[in-house]
Amino acid sequence: MKENRVKAMWRADKPVINGWLGIPSGVAAENMARCGWDSLVIDMQHGLVDYHAAVGMLQAISQTDTVPMARVAWNTTEPVTKLLDAGALGIICPMVNSRAECDFFIRNCRYPPRGNRSYGPLRATWHAGPEYWERSDELVITMAMIETIDAVRNMDDILSTPGLDSIYVGPADLASSMGHRPGPDQKVPEVYAAITAIAEAAKRHGVFAGIHCYDEDYARDMIRKGYRFITMADDNALLSQAARRTIANMRGETGPVLVDAL
Amino acid sequence: MKENRVKAMWRADKPVINGWLGIPSGVAAENMARCGWDSLVIDMQHGLVDYHAAVGMLQAISQTDTVPMARVAWNTTEPVTKLLDAGALGIICPMVNSRAECDFFIRNCRYPPRGNRSYGPLRATWHAGPEYWERSDELVITMAMIETIDAVRNMDDILSTPGLDSIYVGPADLASSMGHRPGPDQKVPEVYAAITAIAEAAKRHGVFAGIHCYDEDYARDMIRKGYRFITMADDNALLSQAARRTIANMRGETGPVLVDAL
Amino acid sequence: MKENRVKAMWRADKPVINGWLGIPSGVAAENMARCGWDSLVIDMQHGLVDYHAAVGMLQAISQTDTVPMARVAWNTTEPVTKLLDAGALGIICPMVNSRAECDFFIRNCRYPPRGNRSYGPLRATWHAGPEYWERSDELVITMAMIETIDAVRNMDDILSTPGLDSIYVGPADLASSMGHRPGPDQKVPEVYAAITAIAEAAKRHGVFAGIHCYDEDYARDMIRKGYRFITMADDNALLSQAARRTIANMRGETGPVLVDAL
Amino acid sequence: MKENRVKAMWRADKPVINGWLGIPSGVAAENMARCGWDSLVIDMQHGLVDYHAAVGMLQAISQTDTVPMARVAWNTTEPVTKLLDAGALGIICPMVNSRAECDFFIRNCRYPPRGNRSYGPLRATWHAGPEYWERSDELVITMAMIETIDAVRNMDDILSTPGLDSIYVGPADLASSMGHRPGPDQKVPEVYAAITAIAEAAKRHGVFAGIHCYDEDYARDMIRKGYRFITMADDNALLSQAARRTIANMRGETGPVLVDAL
Amino acid sequence: MKENRVKAMWRADKPVINGWLGIPSGVAAENMARCGWDSLVIDMQHGLVDYHAAVGMLQAISQTDTVPMARVAWNTTEPVTKLLDAGALGIICPMVNSRAECDFFIRNCRYPPRGNRSYGPLRATWHAGPEYWERSDELVITMAMIETIDAVRNMDDILSTPGLDSIYVGPADLASSMGHRPGPDQKVPEVYAAITAIAEAAKRHGVFAGIHCYDEDYARDMIRKGYRFITMADDNALLSQAARRTIANMRGETGPVLVDAL
Amino acid sequence: MKENRVKAMWRADKPVINGWLGIPSGVAAENMARCGWDSLVIDMQHGLVDYHAAVGMLQAISQTDTVPMARVAWNTTEPVTKLLDAGALGIICPMVNSRAECDFFIRNCRYPPRGNRSYGPLRATWHAGPEYWERSDELVITMAMIETIDAVRNMDDILSTPGLDSIYVGPADLASSMGHRPGPDQKVPEVYAAITAIAEAAKRHGVFAGIHCYDEDYARDMIRKGYRFITMADDNALLSQAARRTIANMRGETGPVLVDAL
Repeated sequence: MKENRVKAMWRADKPVINGWLGIPSGVAAENMARCGWDSLVIDMQHGLVDYHAAVGMLQAISQTDTVPMARVAWNTTEPVTKLLDAGALGIICPMVNSRAECDFFIRNCRYPPRGNRSYGPLRATWHAGPEYWERSDELVITMAMIETIDAVRNMDDILSTPGLDSIYVGPADLASSMGHRPGPDQKVPEVYAAITAIAEAAKRHGVFAGIHCYDEDYARDMIRKGYRFITMADDNALLSQAARRTIANMRGETGPVLVDAL
Repeated sequence: MKENRVKAMWRADKPVINGWLGIPSGVAAENMARCGWDSLVIDMQHGLVDYHAAVGMLQAISQTDTVPMARVAWNTTEPVTKLLDAGALGIICPMVNSRAECDFFIRNCRYPPRGNRSYGPLRATWHAGPEYWERSDELVITMAMIETIDAVRNMDDILSTPGLDSIYVGPADLASSMGHRPGPDQKVPEVYAAITAIAEAAKRHGVFAGIHCYDEDYARDMIRKGYRFITMADDNALLSQAARRTIANMRGETGPVLVDAL
Repeated sequence: MKENRVKAMWRADKPVINGWLGIPSGVAAENMARCGWDSLVIDMQHGLVDYHAAVGMLQAISQTDTVPMARVAWNTTEPVTKLLDAGALGIICPMVNSRAECDFFIRNCRYPPRGNRSYGPLRATWHAGPEYWERSDELVITMAMIETIDAVRNMDDILSTPGLDSIYVGPADLASSMGHRPGPDQKVPEVYAAITAIAEAAKRHGVFAGIHCYDEDYARDMIRKGYRFITMADDNALLSQAARRTIANMRGETGPVLVDAL
Repeated sequence: MKENRVKAMWRADKPVINGWLGIPSGVAAENMARCGWDSLVIDMQHGLVDYHAAVGMLQAISQTDTVPMARVAWNTTEPVTKLLDAGALGIICPMVNSRAECDFFIRNCRYPPRGNRSYGPLRATWHAGPEYWERSDELVITMAMIETIDAVRNMDDILSTPGLDSIYVGPADLASSMGHRPGPDQKVPEVYAAITAIAEAAKRHGVFAGIHCYDEDYARDMIRKGYRFITMADDNALLSQAARRTIANMRGETGPVLVDAL
Repeated sequence: MKENRVKAMWRADKPVINGWLGIPSGVAAENMARCGWDSLVIDMQHGLVDYHAAVGMLQAISQTDTVPMARVAWNTTEPVTKLLDAGALGIICPMVNSRAECDFFIRNCRYPPRGNRSYGPLRATWHAGPEYWERSDELVITMAMIETIDAVRNMDDILSTPGLDSIYVGPADLASSMGHRPGPDQKVPEVYAAITAIAEAAKRHGVFAGIHCYDEDYARDMIRKGYRFITMADDNALLSQAARRTIANMRGETGPVLVDAL
Repeated sequence: MKENRVKAMWRADKPVINGWLGIPSGVAAENMARCGWDSLVIDMQHGLVDYHAAVGMLQAISQTDTVPMARVAWNTTEPVTKLLDAGALGIICPMVNSRAECDFFIRNCRYPPRGNRSYGPLRATWHAGPEYWERSDELVITMAMIETIDAVRNMDDILSTPGLDSIYVGPADLASSMGHRPGPDQKVPEVYAAITAIAEAAKRHGVFAGIHCYDEDYARDMIRKGYRFITMADDNALLSQAARRTIANMRGETGPVLVDAL
């Protein structure tokens, strides 16, 4: 049975370079998976992806060594259980603002006695092997998003939730909840301070921290801050930026190419 | 950046003639959009439409000036956020029976500080332009359904919810909740009285009112009553009625053609 | 095992009232099938339908007594064999201009010794029963389109092709090949004369004749001329015309509603 | 209008032999439906099926006399309402652990006054006929899953919920909640005792009982215990087991063929 | 870069145990691929599979060591080129009745100078590696079907076509072309004699021979006759037979379970 | 009615900057269309795109001013007619090696009297307006690929085919047919010489020339040589190259990022 490579890299204190999928296509997903990302997250929240597409994308990714993960649209039971059964080896849950919300999320990811996930890991067993049930706590990554001012206030409570492997910072929503314009690679002092504090708190609790980035220098700064799961852009932004740059070059235009990031 | 034409018509006190989509097909949606409806609502509740189809239908509609909207299946976060990010410029939410339910719905449609919509308007930005975030309150229509006897009792509370642009009457469910047979174009006195009262209350609160109709004369009566968002039938009923009429004519049959309306 | 109702109606000299499907959706197809058409043709040529949609549409139609048929995009082997195996009980083939082309079409529809259809009637057997192979000549309708001036010149040759059950007139292409504007319900004298002559020739050869119509009076005239397979409009046109009429009525507009027919 | 054959068999005290669908394909569903199952359940929880596939599967099944049903992923409103409107004539709801949860489920399945199902039975009316609304309580089976130790403790409360037609035992989750390895055909004494007790309690309350089985002898034992809705394996397991057996035979391998059951 | 395991087994004179896919679903395809077939053929001719489904099925299979292949619907250029670019490592072409037809098929499979395949191996390169172009003759299996009396007469001509790796016998069409009822596992003497002769001729020409079987004893006989690519049933037949057997057992029925084979 | 902007740019002697679509997704297509390409070609030959996806992609592109075009997989009637009816305003046909092949292609694109395109421009009329039939020669671009040594030898014959608007060079196949390794941006002297000669010949015949490029400097050279339709990379290559560059940067790797071009 396979090991979850993201967890192995974390144990070795290596930063995971993660890709992000918002195009609902197994072809685009395979293209990305063939590029060598450590992991890929299928974004069911802001990506234009539905469950049917996600199943094909999980199959596409599982041709490679890249770890397949998914972000659900909201902290409810159905998407978590369906994506885990379909073979996702990690779930990112948005807007986890309290210990109770975090516990609810974890319980949807874990079999009894820790949680109440219903048994029926159809493709998960195909993909991860017949000991999936015995090893599912070890194979499946739980990752709660800390992305509001409320979550920052409650972060010690959240980070100490049993069964929580990792957290993920959504800088756009974090900034938005603090009254700033949403966007990635936040340098607004109070947002930046919160991002720094989250990494430190996560470390204290033995929980791994991830963050959504676009700029490479910013991402390197985040690694230095302690983040170990670094998302670099997303398929839509990578494609758009490359296309716009090419067009501008061919038309002899200069200046920055604007791409609206998630 | 585009203006939401439905809101512009409302400001000019013109009734919006709205179409309704229950066939899960971008082809059928484009066909309807090319007919010149002021707006089209993709029905994710009783229509046989899923999110994947809805994305293609939104793209199909956005080739034209028709305003793309959607009705979600229930008052939960996931469908609202996904359809808004996919570019719907209005959400109709069924079964809003109290102020708390209305507020929950509004908060799913609005960014902070009014609401808690998560940031990531992927196709919405493609479609509506780079100032989508700044202008989203203005661009996105919130429309709560008043369609039960409870909602009628609570209508002043509901209608005064901050951020509510409009309400929508579902005559079938309204009749059903009052103990009558569900169906459109209600003339049962107590249902008709409630429908009249809703329009009046909406006007008092500065909220625009919409209603689901099949019969044209009934619809004209509703416009006189103050309704400004008039749905005329739906794609499945239009198709079925035209087909049945044609077949009956060719077979020399007479009498009414029965179509079960939503 | 089922009988092909179209053939039964022909034997009783009754005109078949046929519907036409260009929306690629099993939902729209079921809607149409529930209306009571004698037969429905899935249009793989000018309709926006692919094979995958056609399979779902065939399943949708087969819930009812309506006979499922398909028009292929061109006179080649692959679509004929795939649609027959998927359960179509009749194939309309466009642009059959000579005896050789007609014979090629028939051979794709018939098992040896008459033709060279390959054996593997997967869904056809599910749908029509275990004696499908023995009874396939009786169950499957072959219908060649006579729709060019060349075909009219060769019509006796075409109509005497062994295994040909019926022919179908495409008035738009017929007019176009004669130098006139394409369109349905042709009244241009030389086109109308050709349409009349085709029906007469078909009768002489014991072949049933069909034609694509939009106007009901024109269709009745065609029945009088001897046509026994009468297509009335298509789903896209029915939907569009009903929608445009409704919108015009609600806006108080008068005058004809224009719909571009196939 | 059709009768629900499952209910008719129950009235005659005959055990319903039910099939289970986890492959998201109308073709696989039709294949199964042509085999003669009394009913088929589309599994939206652990099967890899989404709503769009389910609609096509419901159409595929409705070509036959097999009763189309569905298991939703979780006890929420949206999937129940959408699947009922799409024509499912029975809903299985997982993880119903209390009277309140059972009542919530029933209310999603029933129109007022019993419940709060919203009116718009689009394909349900196509499929079941124009009196669908009047007869929906009689046509639609409600089936709550008793599959945790908590549900067993609350079973009398659950079983007496008004509008509950039947219950369904998920042996894997039941075992799991009791601290045992999940799996079908449970013989662990305390799990087996619970399964026996559930059938007896159901009988006392006039509620029909169903259970998920793989082994035929075990299934026969369950019929003797009083179960009247017997699921035998699922499409994925049937396919996998047949394929593995064939391969092993051709390679001259002996011994059991392992298939991970749901 | 991967080796084509089918070719390796042939070099070692081992019979390849091949599975057959007619359900258009990546989920069903993965299920089959996880069973351990040496190779799997996606049947685009009689299976209900279109190109879109085939791409997902190829991705599903490529998660495993099973060699992905496809049968095209007819001997034309488009499906061959699209399936090879999508990563099929072998193409079975139906109804190859002459040297000219065989050469046409081979030329569609091979790059210049041997053939005229157009360059653009998108997913083929993702899947098989950057040396795909250099090694494509070695990686891609060409397999022409000998399945008519004409092909048997021309078999030496066909078998000596440069670039032909293997041939495949379709017993149903072979029997049909000889005037017998189509079906698998042919024991009609003249058909059986032809099947025997084909294997011997193939051996003389250094071409590997395959055949479509359902019965295991028959298949073993074919291996003894020299066949080295043995298809055992297909997904639809395996599923149907297992389901019908289960239902019959539960109903206490005896006697054979009938499944219509391809 | 819209003008075809590509033709307008050609008349103004401006080079068209064209994008290329191989991901079968309306979302990816809209992303590209929002970037401002003058035209986009849906690649049905080497791209992983089927007709159903193409329809959605055409709708996605038609939200913008980018001209929607398609490359068919082979010089046959069906794909040309279906893509034109679906609204493509230009068709690129591969492997046109002679005047007869070019004429066949043109006749599939043009209505009588020039060609034999069948009438039924369903979405084409929706998209381009009610005068589509009258203006289709002006609206639809015919573009034949010159990409073999044979085509180069016959180029004057090909270029003088009535109705041919433009030609397109496929450098990979051209190199391949001359015995060189296939690939874009060819600098092999004899291939480069042929590419130069084609542009000159096209100019002599009043036919516009296009070419598939990846490198921007090479593309600029081609513009200087007279090419006026310049494809820059494709969506899969743009995405892959951007992703690989990002990953390499984050891992501190240096050196070129290899992407296999079409």
